[in-house]
Amino acid sequence: MYAVIMAGGVGTRLWPRSRESRPKQFSDITGNGLTMIQETAKRLQGVVDGPELYVVTGAAYAGLTTEQLPQMPADHVIVEPSGRNTAPAIGLACLHLRRRDPDAVVAVLPADHVILQPEHFRTALQRAGEIADQGFLVTLGIEPTFAHTGYGYIKRAEALVDDGGLPAYRVERFLEKPKRIAAEQFLAQGGYYWNGGIFVSRVATMLDELARQAPAIYDRLMQIDAAMAGPDVWTVLQAVWQSVPSVSIDYAVMEGAHKVAVVPMQAGWNDVGSWDALETVLEPDEMGNAIARGEVLLLDSCNNIVYSDKRLVALINVSNIVVVDTGDTLLIGDKSNMQRVKDVVEKLRAQGRNELL
Amino acid sequence: MYAVIMAGGVGTRLWPRSRESRPKQFSDITGNGLTMIQETAKRLQGVVDGPELYVVTGAAYAGLTTEQLPQMPADHVIVEPSGRNTAPAIGLACLHLRRRDPDAVVAVLPADHVILQPEHFRTALQRAGEIADQGFLVTLGIEPTFAHTGYGYIKRAEALVDDGGLPAYRVERFLEKPKRIAAEQFLAQGGYYWNGGIFVSRVATMLDELARQAPAIYDRLMQIDAAMAGPDVWTVLQAVWQSVPSVSIDYAVMEGAHKVAVVPMQAGWNDVGSWDALETVLEPDEMGNAIARGEVLLLDSCNNIVYSDKRLVALINVSNIVVVDTGDTLLIGDKSNMQRVKDVVEKLRAQGRNELL
Repeated sequence: MYAVIMAGGVGTRLWPRSRESRPKQFSDITGNGLTMIQETAKRLQGVVDGPELYVVTGAAYAGLTTEQLPQMPADHVIVEPSGRNTAPAIGLACLHLRRRDPDAVVAVLPADHVILQPEHFRTALQRAGEIADQGFLVTLGIEPTFAHTGYGYIKRAEALVDDGGLPAYRVERFLEKPKRIAAEQFLAQGGYYWNGGIFVSRVATMLDELARQAPAIYDRLMQIDAAMAGPDVWTVLQAVWQSVPSVSIDYAVMEGAHKVAVVPMQAGWNDVGSWDALETVLEPDEMGNAIARGEVLLLDSCNNIVYSDKRLVALINVSNIVVVDTGDTLLIGDKSNMQRVKDVVEKLRAQGRNELL
Repeated sequence: MYAVIMAGGVGTRLWPRSRESRPKQFSDITGNGLTMIQETAKRLQGVVDGPELYVVTGAAYAGLTTEQLPQMPADHVIVEPSGRNTAPAIGLACLHLRRRDPDAVVAVLPADHVILQPEHFRTALQRAGEIADQGFLVTLGIEPTFAHTGYGYIKRAEALVDDGGLPAYRVERFLEKPKRIAAEQFLAQGGYYWNGGIFVSRVATMLDELARQAPAIYDRLMQIDAAMAGPDVWTVLQAVWQSVPSVSIDYAVMEGAHKVAVVPMQAGWNDVGSWDALETVLEPDEMGNAIARGEVLLLDSCNNIVYSDKRLVALINVSNIVVVDTGDTLLIGDKSNMQRVKDVVEKLRAQGRNELL
């Protein structure tokens, strides 16, 4: 199996640690000594190792990528001239893989997620690979733990296998982010999964579906493919990329594909969509404080989340706050309002404080 | 008039800005660009200027003192070999002043207080000087604004002057820090003032009272005085100082003195006894946030106090907290619990973290 890690995103939700110059996937967010992309590569080990690993990212992050993943050949960094959402990025990666191995099965994964039980993840991934071999586009379906309204959902149909191993199902349909009441129904009813953006398929299946469902993307990919052996590949890529439609793989391919399957996974998945998520992916102390990094001295303080670069953080009688202490910026927020970090970033952008973005 | 600024204290209440290596009087706490001792010297200007200014402090802070008060002759730094509370320190300063001017009237002031209306302070000081000239030990009595239980109180007796200027009264007695109910009675009854530790007297009056009431201190001061013209003054001072009783000027002199007066003062006095006091000495914004130093970006956050060395501080939906951001330490506390800073310092001391004290 091959893997393509999608590492082009520039999120603001983990600002001030996540910056335009170093998005969260290139930072150690959980304080375990590995950056998120390193963690992503590490959890693939045994199923996909360095030589079979690829990364799609922007030109600005190619250096960070090779630096952080020395086990991967440097020419496995596939550079997008600009962000065009997931469908073109995955298509571009498939061109490279098809040249290397026409029968390749590829796993596509975001670079910035946390998975607490990587062995469960690998088992699910291998099962997905087997189903993908039969011509399916396979998505890993994350068993929902509550009625989250911020994710897309996958509704399963009939079972595809019955061999005593991990189950796999045909997908009935993909659902957009639901309203709360719908999300609660999904949970009560069962058979629904969060769409975490992890897919497995044969490269040929993916390209065929792109050709059938998204010819505007596919045609441009073919122009790029034609130039790939030659000296002008970067020039062609840049020129063509400007007119590639910016579409997600869900919308462009998955929702309308002929054969789509889901392999359920219960592996402690978390997309670390805001600072308060650290509480879920770390082991809090007996007072409920989750310390990601840094030295913390606590007096009667509970249920806080602290991420400190270097300095001692002393808390006196404060609760339910998040403290993110970086070199040039200090963020302190109420735990249940951390999605507002994006408002802080927007304010700074409006003020032209680009050095802080 | 002469002035002696008492700058030997090493408080922990404004940690982490106040450190053993640089106590709060040598730091800019209110963010106006002046350290507290500079502010203290500045507010004396016009009544006592540089040439008449003296500072008593520890050897460790002599350098900081001359650096921060260049308008004062360097030999006006009177070094205590060790901290022996206020009575010996004031006595030592009086020896120096008596040699310069036997008729000197001296104001003794703490180095680390804030006074928002310095012109009122100067008027009161001048009035105190007039009363001191008549042989009184004069204390400035701070008009209480609430029933504070952390200060000593001064109860006034009959009026001493009736010339249409500032009033002055004989002191009936000094009272220790009261219980709440007593403090409330003081306020309701009137005629009580906070003891802010600001005294004015003739040098001769002070030394006479020390001789009469505190002979153990006075005798040792005379030993030091005898050595003062000679080359061994520092050796003698060090030797004698070890056996000087450590007593406050209130206890040693003021409470039992023959002629004690109080000049009331309403000048926005604050001893900045903890970080939450900054709220009182700064102008909060319309949301009640008091920003002493630093750049702060606020989203729905109110009634906070922020002191930041350099970095941007972003607050999201937090209220009633104090943030003190220094080079190596970040302190975040509930506003009504900031007196617990001393517990943090004690914990660090117990851990041997001397670099943070």
